[in-house]
Amino acid sequence: MTVVSEVLNRKGHNVASILPSESIRTAARTLTDRRIGALVVCDRRGRLAGILSERDIVRAVAMHGADALDMPVEDLMTRQVKTCRPEDTIKDLMQMMTLRRHRHVPVCNEAGDLAGVISIGDAVKARLDEQAHEVAVLKDLALVR
Amino acid sequence: MTVVSEVLNRKGHNVASILPSESIRTAARTLTDRRIGALVVCDRRGRLAGILSERDIVRAVAMHGADALDMPVEDLMTRQVKTCRPEDTIKDLMQMMTLRRHRHVPVCNEAGDLAGVISIGDAVKARLDEQAHEVAVLKDLALVR
Repeated sequence: MTVVSEVLNRKGHNVASILPSESIRTAARTLTDRRIGALVVCDRRGRLAGILSERDIVRAVAMHGADALDMPVEDLMTRQVKTCRPEDTIKDLMQMMTLRRHRHVPVCNEAGDLAGVISIGDAVKARLDEQAHEVAVLKDLALVR
Repeated sequence: MTVVSEVLNRKGHNVASILPSESIRTAARTLTDRRIGALVVCDRRGRLAGILSERDIVRAVAMHGADALDMPVEDLMTRQVKTCRPEDTIKDLMQMMTLRRHRHVPVCNEAGDLAGVISIGDAVKARLDEQAHEVAVLKDLALVR
């Protein structure tokens, strides 16, 4: 079973983060510059405070119009962030993401430090590779027996 | 092999569309109200003119600030839309979506009429179900032989 840490080792442990006090305008620029779909929100001590996605920005614009751009990230971020551990399996993570409709899950180690972020795209790719491998093994087995 | 029309029959043929002349503000509201990630842009005759995603709106805000909200959809939409056919397999569609990084693909029939939209989420779910089924069949086969 593929685990989260293997996927992070392939994609890198880089986390795109932003301060809770920064503006939605800055968040939109960071997302665009880095070509990603969500930012992890960390306080000045580096502790996880929330997550802000493209969808949060579109919703803010829909609700508040141009005023949304000057609002601080902390007013629009999701505070109840579901995290996972490096040793969790991709299978379990994907079930959780599909069930709760999360598209980005921060990875925290035992000490609570951020170790990376897994997107639904990362999870899907890893899970499809895993299933394709399982099919190949079973086909070999069926041929040999 | 699961084909696109089977997935559309399960999820529905509803297409959330917007006119090219509508504003980004209206697009943001429609996306938020319908809880979706992209709108198909159709002209007054119902012909496909482009596609506008959450990412396009975030990028517009990053580049143009508050002015983005009054810009027409046609200035920010993607015009070169890759479509698929109802008879295409989900396997081929997913390869295309992963390769080209498309998250939404409109489905058009032979006459060129819009028959629905498949998101990467729809494709992933169908493909995982298909692979799980394949694994189950192969396991049965391995037991019987």
